[in-house]
Amino acid sequence: MAVPSSSIAPPLKDELDIVIPTIRNLDFLEQWRPFFQPYHLIIVQDGDPSKTIKVPEGFDYELYNRNDINRILGPKASCISFKDSACRCFGYMVSKKKYIYTIDDDCFVAKDPSGKDINALQQHIKNLLTPSTPFFFNTLYDPYRDGADFVRGYPFSFREGVLTAVSHGLWLNIPDYDAPTQLVKPLERNTRYVDAVMSIPKGTLFPMCGMNLAFNRELIGPAMYFGLMGDGQPIGRYDDMWAGWCTKVICDHLGLGVKTGLPYIWHSKASNPFVNLKKEYKGIFWQEELIPFFQSVSLPKDCTTVQKCYIEISNQVKAKLGKVDDYFSKLADAMVTWIEAWDELNPPSAAVPVPKGASK
Amino acid sequence: MAVPSSSIAPPLKDELDIVIPTIRNLDFLEQWRPFFQPYHLIIVQDGDPSKTIKVPEGFDYELYNRNDINRILGPKASCISFKDSACRCFGYMVSKKKYIYTIDDDCFVAKDPSGKDINALQQHIKNLLTPSTPFFFNTLYDPYRDGADFVRGYPFSFREGVLTAVSHGLWLNIPDYDAPTQLVKPLERNTRYVDAVMSIPKGTLFPMCGMNLAFNRELIGPAMYFGLMGDGQPIGRYDDMWAGWCTKVICDHLGLGVKTGLPYIWHSKASNPFVNLKKEYKGIFWQEELIPFFQSVSLPKDCTTVQKCYIEISNQVKAKLGKVDDYFSKLADAMVTWIEAWDELNPPSAAVPVPKGASK
Repeated sequence: MAVPSSSIAPPLKDELDIVIPTIRNLDFLEQWRPFFQPYHLIIVQDGDPSKTIKVPEGFDYELYNRNDINRILGPKASCISFKDSACRCFGYMVSKKKYIYTIDDDCFVAKDPSGKDINALQQHIKNLLTPSTPFFFNTLYDPYRDGADFVRGYPFSFREGVLTAVSHGLWLNIPDYDAPTQLVKPLERNTRYVDAVMSIPKGTLFPMCGMNLAFNRELIGPAMYFGLMGDGQPIGRYDDMWAGWCTKVICDHLGLGVKTGLPYIWHSKASNPFVNLKKEYKGIFWQEELIPFFQSVSLPKDCTTVQKCYIEISNQVKAKLGKVDDYFSKLADAMVTWIEAWDELNPPSAAVPVPKGASK
Repeated sequence: MAVPSSSIAPPLKDELDIVIPTIRNLDFLEQWRPFFQPYHLIIVQDGDPSKTIKVPEGFDYELYNRNDINRILGPKASCISFKDSACRCFGYMVSKKKYIYTIDDDCFVAKDPSGKDINALQQHIKNLLTPSTPFFFNTLYDPYRDGADFVRGYPFSFREGVLTAVSHGLWLNIPDYDAPTQLVKPLERNTRYVDAVMSIPKGTLFPMCGMNLAFNRELIGPAMYFGLMGDGQPIGRYDDMWAGWCTKVICDHLGLGVKTGLPYIWHSKASNPFVNLKKEYKGIFWQEELIPFFQSVSLPKDCTTVQKCYIEISNQVKAKLGKVDDYFSKLADAMVTWIEAWDELNPPSAAVPVPKGASK
């Protein structure tokens, strides 16, 4: 029943892009070199496009700045956030690979309890290539892992599991707290290494953090829109949350799996809680309405593709959340624009060449 | 927000009973002495009542054998299984305490990764005395634990959590596998210490194992019926599963929490897989019908007590599972008998004295 991890090879070298949003030189890649160098990077440069971002020697990458995004998407570039790491989703759109791993540039290699460097990407690949089990909770966590299985009482008909669309990794050191919690617990550090990967049950929402995240672009890519954040928007730091809520609802509807847990990265730098509070405070109100909304979203049976599901959610966002704030009407429109742009760059026949940014 | 664990004291010495079903001398208690000796034990002796069960010196206990059960319950004793550890639930019924911890007599003290003996009972008490968070998944697991909290994107209105009714502990060494998995993986041992406690989300069922289990008897006791197993019954090894499915559905309905994870015990002895297969094989078929049944059970609003919920489930069992096998009609009747017996021994006014077995 369990798939031995030794069968998970090769590491998808030609099927996975690493997407990094940044405003600075990518020195952090030096530490990741042993794990990332075989892979292709898509760097999404945020902020001033005239600035030059230095990438360490030897990495294979393409880089897009705001001018590239505007040129490639034209008027549809309005759906891509500016001055916010939400811009990373442009990288998902221009990738042609089956899998995406995205990481923040303040994330470093963590160590497991034995002191060994954690190859985060390898663990994400394991997570994505083994099934998820969202229909029933397995008390020994991931049943496909070496040394584990389904426990007594787990229905046999559920043991094949479903395809895994998302692998959500965690962070040691600086935990991903909201501004109020940061303010109250400035010194709190996450030191607990929890040696588990688990499926998030069907019908359960979770706070998806974009810091250390992998997904199957073919299965769920169009749902990974990071919304309208940053410059000109009333809100920030809800980009990954928004993507996570939409994604989870769609995965549940389409019978796809979402995992969370391993791998850990080392999150080095706490962002400024005062700045964060300013970005977040409307979201703190709004999320009280957003969660019941997403918990009650129901997608009709004819929503058989991610795109159809996503457009349906955008309609419901407009109808139900538009009342909460005008922002959600704008966001609903941007969701539609995002899907249009996605389909333009990713036409059903994959024969159409994709415009490229300033490739290396 | 997080409740520091140091505030969890005293260890409920006068509010918790330890329930142990057994057919043999309780030498295993020697290893547990430092942790269990302050507590009162309720020993439910299964099998031949003429046999004497030796309990190590210094433990405070009461012991019930089959003759005691028959004497105390009269004709209602038919709801208590014989020649099966399901008989343990009689101990829940005669207890007068707020909390129950139940453990199998082949379970020993496990060690944490630092080599320290794990006080399983203390961890269960922590789990029971801190809230659960079944409405939204927290990616750093138990938010009330030292060094953890709710992560960004967790709605603030959910952070109070709900009362915890059940704490489901795990097992190192021999995993709790069904007979087919035991047969296929005879050498598999659980060596992974996962340092986490988590709430099982609302709407998600899990396989509750009775080996290392604690619960709040006042909140959920009447749902902890371990069914009809063993002597004269077509099935075994589904006693705890049955209790878990009923309990989870009722907890979800009443807004109570169920946690799983820490603490671990050391499970020493694999039961015979051939014997287990004989006990289980009908259950392996039946669980394919039971899980969809429990996933679709809906309790009406006027089911405001555990007893009312449980009687309603028994009605639905009879109506919907009676078709699967006559056994479920008998079981539905036994569920009603169980509640009647529970209410007799636990009248709303707690003034009525409870008959005792052969107290020490």
